[in-house]
Amino acid sequence: MEKLFVIKIGGNVIDNDDALDAFLKRFASIQAPRILIHGGGKIATRFGEKLGIESKYVNGRRITDDQTIDLVTMVYGGLVNKKIVAALQAMGCNAIGLTGADANLIPAVKRPVKDVDFGWVGDIPSEKINAEPARKLLQQGWVPVVAPLTHDTNGHILNTNADTIASVLAVGLSAWYDVRLVYCFEKKGVLEDVENDDSVVRLITPTIYDKLKAGNRLFAGILPKIDNAFAAIEAGVGEVLIGHADDLLTNTGTETSGTLIRRS
Amino acid sequence: MEKLFVIKIGGNVIDNDDALDAFLKRFASIQAPRILIHGGGKIATRFGEKLGIESKYVNGRRITDDQTIDLVTMVYGGLVNKKIVAALQAMGCNAIGLTGADANLIPAVKRPVKDVDFGWVGDIPSEKINAEPARKLLQQGWVPVVAPLTHDTNGHILNTNADTIASVLAVGLSAWYDVRLVYCFEKKGVLEDVENDDSVVRLITPTIYDKLKAGNRLFAGILPKIDNAFAAIEAGVGEVLIGHADDLLTNTGTETSGTLIRRS
Repeated sequence: MEKLFVIKIGGNVIDNDDALDAFLKRFASIQAPRILIHGGGKIATRFGEKLGIESKYVNGRRITDDQTIDLVTMVYGGLVNKKIVAALQAMGCNAIGLTGADANLIPAVKRPVKDVDFGWVGDIPSEKINAEPARKLLQQGWVPVVAPLTHDTNGHILNTNADTIASVLAVGLSAWYDVRLVYCFEKKGVLEDVENDDSVVRLITPTIYDKLKAGNRLFAGILPKIDNAFAAIEAGVGEVLIGHADDLLTNTGTETSGTLIRRS
Repeated sequence: MEKLFVIKIGGNVIDNDDALDAFLKRFASIQAPRILIHGGGKIATRFGEKLGIESKYVNGRRITDDQTIDLVTMVYGGLVNKKIVAALQAMGCNAIGLTGADANLIPAVKRPVKDVDFGWVGDIPSEKINAEPARKLLQQGWVPVVAPLTHDTNGHILNTNADTIASVLAVGLSAWYDVRLVYCFEKKGVLEDVENDDSVVRLITPTIYDKLKAGNRLFAGILPKIDNAFAAIEAGVGEVLIGHADDLLTNTGTETSGTLIRRS
């Protein structure tokens, strides 16, 4: 099967014009089918403040009320997405910017209200995953650039975690591609010692993961990311790579420098 | 050749939620390949005021400075475009929302500074017209929904007149389709008597146009629209229809009620 890179960048890169430009140059130079999923960064909060829209959080998660979904649709789906697309086009990369509503790329469901009403937030049940539209875009030679927005198929845009969107696209596209899901963040990988940037765990398999956990050798905050990576692999993704945005080219090559997570 | 409808709606429809919903229901029910081009409406001005971005105009044209291009990218490319796409998806119409930067749909050039610096405004030289990306989208069965934004291929988004974008797409796609370019506005068509909504001129050919002009039978404001329609026809478009948004289904049928403009 042909190799496909599903690459997610977060807010730290997006909030810094120079870092974003450097990242996009690297991304543009990759010679393989690829998809970019971007987070929103702090731009939404900044515009929200100017517009008098207060950011509300419960348990660290943004509550997406009517005003907020309009705000993130503008900022994530408009400003951030189109800036990235225009920049990539200038670099010779034929990007096409989308939300999950476009071409019905990512149908989702509004999160049910239990203790907390998160508002216009979308979750993606595994039975809803349909990567056929994404595959069609790739077959045309386009490079999809996806904003962290989905839709409920009833006319509403939903705010959705970018890591989740990346994972869902990676799982769905594994039917046709050998997928490496690459999470870019501000560390070189999963660290054995959070104080030491060079203590990257280069390979995590289930066996290695059990040993690391048994020895309390990992920072608790990284465990959900690794659990999600294994869930994606369980669902068909070839491998997951967690690494620094600066190391994108190494981490989309054969000799990776970040943390490679795979079945064995 | 297969029939294609390139349909433009303006701000009056977009600014009214009920009118927009009714229009989109009509648009969704059309059983033929089609493209929707939307204007921005007054939403950008409203958000601009809240953000403290002053709207500047010279000769009735918005000056698009750095802040304004970000504003319209957010509002036209994000909020308006994605609301339309999500609504159409809920109506069973497989819409895909785009700006001219996406898939390099509409390359343009920044308007040269002569007497006035219009800022980030894009013009589309006829030699730049390349409708191959739009054709690919149509071939996949998607319904492109296009915001009034283009790009300079050097990394900048440009604010571009929606009528112009509609015309450029219609001309380019005429290589493969029998195109009817439909301009929806708030009148039933070109009126002989602006006070009388029922005085629609049902057909304008060059011969009829000459007679109408010779008799001073047309409102001066409509002449540029008719001139542009004939320019599009000269460049390959089958026919141009100017009519009311409410009459979309009639005007995409065989017995039109608006003003049909064609070569003979």
